[in-house]
Amino acid sequence: MPSPCRIDVHFHLIPPFYQEAVYAAGAGPAIGRYPDWSPERALELMDQSGIALALTSLAQPGVQFGDPAKAAALARRCNDYASELCRRWPKRFGAFAVVPMWELREAVSEIDHALGALKHQGVCLFASYGEKFLGDAYFDPVMAALNERDAVVFVHPALHPSSRKLDLPWPGFMMEYLFDTTRAAVNLVFSGTMERFPRIRFVLAHAGGLMPYFAWRLSISPMIDARLEQLSPADIHARLDHFWYDNALSPTAETLACVERIAPGGHVVFGSDWPFANGRVIAEALKTYQAVAMPQAAREAIDRANALSLFPRLA
Amino acid sequence: MPSPCRIDVHFHLIPPFYQEAVYAAGAGPAIGRYPDWSPERALELMDQSGIALALTSLAQPGVQFGDPAKAAALARRCNDYASELCRRWPKRFGAFAVVPMWELREAVSEIDHALGALKHQGVCLFASYGEKFLGDAYFDPVMAALNERDAVVFVHPALHPSSRKLDLPWPGFMMEYLFDTTRAAVNLVFSGTMERFPRIRFVLAHAGGLMPYFAWRLSISPMIDARLEQLSPADIHARLDHFWYDNALSPTAETLACVERIAPGGHVVFGSDWPFANGRVIAEALKTYQAVAMPQAAREAIDRANALSLFPRLA
Amino acid sequence: MPSPCRIDVHFHLIPPFYQEAVYAAGAGPAIGRYPDWSPERALELMDQSGIALALTSLAQPGVQFGDPAKAAALARRCNDYASELCRRWPKRFGAFAVVPMWELREAVSEIDHALGALKHQGVCLFASYGEKFLGDAYFDPVMAALNERDAVVFVHPALHPSSRKLDLPWPGFMMEYLFDTTRAAVNLVFSGTMERFPRIRFVLAHAGGLMPYFAWRLSISPMIDARLEQLSPADIHARLDHFWYDNALSPTAETLACVERIAPGGHVVFGSDWPFANGRVIAEALKTYQAVAMPQAAREAIDRANALSLFPRLA
Amino acid sequence: MPSPCRIDVHFHLIPPFYQEAVYAAGAGPAIGRYPDWSPERALELMDQSGIALALTSLAQPGVQFGDPAKAAALARRCNDYASELCRRWPKRFGAFAVVPMWELREAVSEIDHALGALKHQGVCLFASYGEKFLGDAYFDPVMAALNERDAVVFVHPALHPSSRKLDLPWPGFMMEYLFDTTRAAVNLVFSGTMERFPRIRFVLAHAGGLMPYFAWRLSISPMIDARLEQLSPADIHARLDHFWYDNALSPTAETLACVERIAPGGHVVFGSDWPFANGRVIAEALKTYQAVAMPQAAREAIDRANALSLFPRLA
Repeated sequence: MPSPCRIDVHFHLIPPFYQEAVYAAGAGPAIGRYPDWSPERALELMDQSGIALALTSLAQPGVQFGDPAKAAALARRCNDYASELCRRWPKRFGAFAVVPMWELREAVSEIDHALGALKHQGVCLFASYGEKFLGDAYFDPVMAALNERDAVVFVHPALHPSSRKLDLPWPGFMMEYLFDTTRAAVNLVFSGTMERFPRIRFVLAHAGGLMPYFAWRLSISPMIDARLEQLSPADIHARLDHFWYDNALSPTAETLACVERIAPGGHVVFGSDWPFANGRVIAEALKTYQAVAMPQAAREAIDRANALSLFPRLA
Repeated sequence: MPSPCRIDVHFHLIPPFYQEAVYAAGAGPAIGRYPDWSPERALELMDQSGIALALTSLAQPGVQFGDPAKAAALARRCNDYASELCRRWPKRFGAFAVVPMWELREAVSEIDHALGALKHQGVCLFASYGEKFLGDAYFDPVMAALNERDAVVFVHPALHPSSRKLDLPWPGFMMEYLFDTTRAAVNLVFSGTMERFPRIRFVLAHAGGLMPYFAWRLSISPMIDARLEQLSPADIHARLDHFWYDNALSPTAETLACVERIAPGGHVVFGSDWPFANGRVIAEALKTYQAVAMPQAAREAIDRANALSLFPRLA
Repeated sequence: MPSPCRIDVHFHLIPPFYQEAVYAAGAGPAIGRYPDWSPERALELMDQSGIALALTSLAQPGVQFGDPAKAAALARRCNDYASELCRRWPKRFGAFAVVPMWELREAVSEIDHALGALKHQGVCLFASYGEKFLGDAYFDPVMAALNERDAVVFVHPALHPSSRKLDLPWPGFMMEYLFDTTRAAVNLVFSGTMERFPRIRFVLAHAGGLMPYFAWRLSISPMIDARLEQLSPADIHARLDHFWYDNALSPTAETLACVERIAPGGHVVFGSDWPFANGRVIAEALKTYQAVAMPQAAREAIDRANALSLFPRLA
Repeated sequence: MPSPCRIDVHFHLIPPFYQEAVYAAGAGPAIGRYPDWSPERALELMDQSGIALALTSLAQPGVQFGDPAKAAALARRCNDYASELCRRWPKRFGAFAVVPMWELREAVSEIDHALGALKHQGVCLFASYGEKFLGDAYFDPVMAALNERDAVVFVHPALHPSSRKLDLPWPGFMMEYLFDTTRAAVNLVFSGTMERFPRIRFVLAHAGGLMPYFAWRLSISPMIDARLEQLSPADIHARLDHFWYDNALSPTAETLACVERIAPGGHVVFGSDWPFANGRVIAEALKTYQAVAMPQAAREAIDRANALSLFPRLA
């Protein structure tokens, strides 16, 4: 039994009123129906999995569904709900705020509220909104607000509308989620967004989508295509250096080695993806992760210490 | 200087008449314009890169552009052209045939011609045609023909139409190509196509797209989503075992380790992706690949011996 | 700070009366003078180093000094002293008995007492007595007694007399100790002693002396010299498989990898060599050991679980 | 079949007149009797083993046997014989001169002759002469002569007289050889000899004896014993940095990793130890060595390039 020391940055909350609203709009999560969720079930899973504290976030579709006019109010209610968990179990929960992105004014306002009054640990942004991906200049007002606050941004995958055109029967979490996160990461790097808003710390879900696997290819892309900004491999790696990664559903030694090649400063934090990753899946992931050969300090860093350097208030 | 022993399974030909036809249809390659190509330039790059023999293939868009009625004739002409290279330089070139997939009857007929009369070493299929991906039952007649011939199928990425809806400025080769190959690989596995046509050997371009990076996630996907066929991780790995991989544009130790975790039998072959990967890019890739720590026999296997086990006639 | 879970199999006691007797005989330890020792200092070091329980043993010269007629009585007194520590701190100490080897009858008798009445966890034998090394048929009566009791034998280095002829100024612990253990290990393997007394579990100090470094050479020695029993490399490795190793003063990744190559079943246990390895040395060793990349379960096995499989009564 | 590119620094010659002299004195090699030797057999083994060029040396006992008054003349004759091989097969043989060490004046004189007139690539010294080991100040006149010539010294094990007192039946090459080399290496480091004669390059046979396995222990020895010169671990590692190593009879990945930890500059060269390692043994060693995972350039360095940096005239 692991000692309960882990800080989990990829842990979902599903407030009952939120679940109802999603179903009422004919939407739902990538796995079809929501799994059972309650704070007590959350704590039970955490105890079983050595998780001392979990930073909650809303999964896709966030508040981007149904009536746009209601998104800001729903976001506020969800964020207040998350704060209530933190108040009730202050040693067990933190929160990434959901942001209503249909109106950027509303987004900035909710960021102010969540990071200010509510003292959330950061915000959760989706990798894409519509067909636009993080890194698009359209989102700059939000990025400016986050940069000003030295915010931690947890980048969670979504499903862009055109992905529904694919003639494939597989649920989004199997592949498209990963592609979504990957596109956001690449767009943040090559659009220069990370350079313009250097104080934001982006934490990429699921070991960076798939980006670490082909980071070499990215690093020489300007050599392949003269139309790209002629960044050197070193330039590109310097930008990649700023990302953080959670290890949710990505527990193998090989995957971690790809991440560590581009995240030399130890930018890996623990993530479980509960409850979409159910208890059985998390137990398998932990077994695999614990079997990875690593120095004792490296394991303690992923389990806890790296998260504390992102969120010193949790210490 | 490497000794010229390598067999390159990912090497493109661009017949002059083909390039004209693509441009005339307003199409082009993922990097915009075709690079200079001639058999002599090909041989020069091969000599510089230790490549004894290259198996040529047509890159995307293959013959899927312009007037569908002309696709079969264009495919025939391209395949004959490739055979001409093999006749003229029998020690230096082999060929993967292009297949006209708009009409499956035409596809089967061209497969018969290319693998029969022309004695090509295999065929090149794109990962997707329209919004359908390899593994779709629609392609079964082609798979049946290939299975009957114990064919080697080189799976090369394409760009499905809906990917153009993405509001992103990056050329397809940077990411979408990799997602395309990945979807084909996953669809071949989970649709059961590989089980139904077990005699086909699929060689996935670019280290499998991105699939090896998240093979663990794939292996537990049925635990996450009860709607999926309830294959065990061992079942899924047993299917993955059948894939082969080229290492074009994927030379790092970490990427190779991900591949080898799911390809225990040594199913990795050398690929360069010339000329879309130009000489400078290939030199960088070779430098990185040669710096990977591996047993001498493992290197010789990737460079040459594994390809000979796929293509014994080349010995 | 490590949690205090380790079981230390290489931990010395220096009873005050014993130290006086050694000095009185003009003898002493390999480092010249005895370091300060008391049970309280021992417990302090254990607490600092995450050591829950230590198995004590007498270092060289054991009771092989001075008047042979007094050796048996001194051994008895030392073993009773060790038992007293175990009684007083039953959760913190276990014991390997010292054996008076000048008279094998006395040796067998003390083994009976220590493993029977005193319930010591095993015995400590020196790698050599005089110019004879463990494995010499001369010691067979002792081996027979140990085999009958399924004993654990901790093999600690000594200094054979002829090593004093070496015209070298370095203290024995720097090299000769390691050669001594190595000779015992090789002699146990090639003399067939381990085959004849298969129930003894031998724990080799200091990562096996140096034997794991040249195990390959040992495995092909019969190919080099026809006068040797013509064991195959597999035969020799099968014999090596039975050894256990402590990691005292041997904390690097490279050294451990050599051991694990020949001890596939996880036969490595934790050792500190206190107080000859003083607190500063042990802190350095722990730092190095903790930086070795290993699965979580492998570390827990070395720290504790492997020792419990040798000494189930400690659980 | 390996391409014949290797430079072998550990390759013995056994001139017929020398073998007779050894037998006549009642001496012999560590394996009892000399194996068959001739230049033609040597070339045959080299061709089978990918060895382009071998640097010959006399094994133990060198010329330290029989009548001391004849040692210098025998050394001269052996060195002239080695030169004759080099003249006859200039692309296949180089030579390390044997040095008559009973009279240091004779030793210096023969060094002058061999490195001057004969242009040998270096000299072979034994790790010990009598009970003295390299590093002993007694040998300083020889070291001074070698330092002045920037000589390469191949350190080959011998058997010091007191080792015959060991009550063990195993031939010297099984263990005592390795201890002998190890003592020389440690003595060279801790005596300060390497500091005083910094221009000599010492190549240690058999992967350094056993020294790389316990280099960590050496590095903290001054912390254990206050009587030692209080060198820091960094000081000691800086001295170890100067050694070179051959990989004769030491082909495993684990052994090589120990060496590379203390020889970061790539100071490993190829060695076979023929004919004491016979063809079957060398084939096994090559199989194991070739299975070690290493970058292509690292393998080429061990096989050839590192030797060329020691012996640029061979290029």
